[in-house]
Amino acid sequence: MSKVRFNISMSLDGFVAGPGQSVKDPIGVGGMRLHEWAFPLAAWRSPHGLSGGEVNDSSSVVEESLANIGATVMGRHMFGGHPGPWDAERPWNGWWGTNPPFHHPVFVVTHYAREPLVLDGGTTFTFVTGGIESAFLRARDAAGGKDVSLAGGANVSQQYLAAGLVDEMEIHLVPVLLGRGERLFDHVGDELHGLKLVRTVVTPEVVHLKFVR
Amino acid sequence: MSKVRFNISMSLDGFVAGPGQSVKDPIGVGGMRLHEWAFPLAAWRSPHGLSGGEVNDSSSVVEESLANIGATVMGRHMFGGHPGPWDAERPWNGWWGTNPPFHHPVFVVTHYAREPLVLDGGTTFTFVTGGIESAFLRARDAAGGKDVSLAGGANVSQQYLAAGLVDEMEIHLVPVLLGRGERLFDHVGDELHGLKLVRTVVTPEVVHLKFVR
Repeated sequence: MSKVRFNISMSLDGFVAGPGQSVKDPIGVGGMRLHEWAFPLAAWRSPHGLSGGEVNDSSSVVEESLANIGATVMGRHMFGGHPGPWDAERPWNGWWGTNPPFHHPVFVVTHYAREPLVLDGGTTFTFVTGGIESAFLRARDAAGGKDVSLAGGANVSQQYLAAGLVDEMEIHLVPVLLGRGERLFDHVGDELHGLKLVRTVVTPEVVHLKFVR
Repeated sequence: MSKVRFNISMSLDGFVAGPGQSVKDPIGVGGMRLHEWAFPLAAWRSPHGLSGGEVNDSSSVVEESLANIGATVMGRHMFGGHPGPWDAERPWNGWWGTNPPFHHPVFVVTHYAREPLVLDGGTTFTFVTGGIESAFLRARDAAGGKDVSLAGGANVSQQYLAAGLVDEMEIHLVPVLLGRGERLFDHVGDELHGLKLVRTVVTPEVVHLKFVR
């Protein structure tokens, strides 16, 4: 049975992106601080086509989050580009260059229809205008029995969490404050729909909290 | 050197109290969910005059938080009672009965002057109208070389954190959502003033995150 697995870096004060997200600042001002724990890891570098890197207690968490994923769902904000209708003259093709690190079908939840975008290395972006449940069903079909990764950003993640559609959630809690930005749990309500804390991995840079239902 | 040590229970979505705090609901609606991990512990029951209780991995964290404390600072909200000027006819003497669990001098940050309140078991409440720094200095003097405990609530804790006056912070992160209420890190800004994560203790009910600077 295909699960929806969600993993995201969050500051101690609950933010998953800083303020002022833009093409120049994809994770908002200061948002990169949430991801510094991951960049040195070989487990992060490898799927991004980079060699070398460190191994520490976070490595197995990253490897686990990437294993057995057959498709990804993300929001338009996460896919990026200027908000509003797609710009036909200067098409935005994502942050990840010609060979994105997904290597499987990716479904982008958006208000604006667009033809699928086929890139190198097995990554295809399909733009879904029917909302989060439609995107989930298409991703599950495309995953071929493997799991579906929910990749963010905040808005779409909130919708999936509030709808109880998340089967596993890994929060990479980073012990810093952002002070402002996008909160993961805004508009989610007061319940986790059966998600329970089942495993914690700690390094000086990050506390990995795994929830399963 | 006397340190300011702060410990508080916080939900995964960053709340330290639910909405609608009142004499009837001291921690707000749903706020008691943040403290359920502590109530069964012998280490919590003992200073509250209760015998028995459990021992688990949280026990040493609670014992550590209570050790070597010579005085406590808290806000008017934490001390409780109806907001505004003190009611002379029906004086509010705190939530804790005639023998509160502090057993040392407690300084309450308030806008409203009031004579000190001497209760049983060594607890004296002194009402400080000069703000958080004044309360800190008085508590430090009263602590006689021991540490000062910052007991909350949210508003006064935010002021101490923003001023960089907290030397140790233990966050009891409870893996639930409250959805609404008082956030610990509102109005604190984007830095922890040198507080770094140094120790984590995990049980199924709570993740204890200790920060020291």
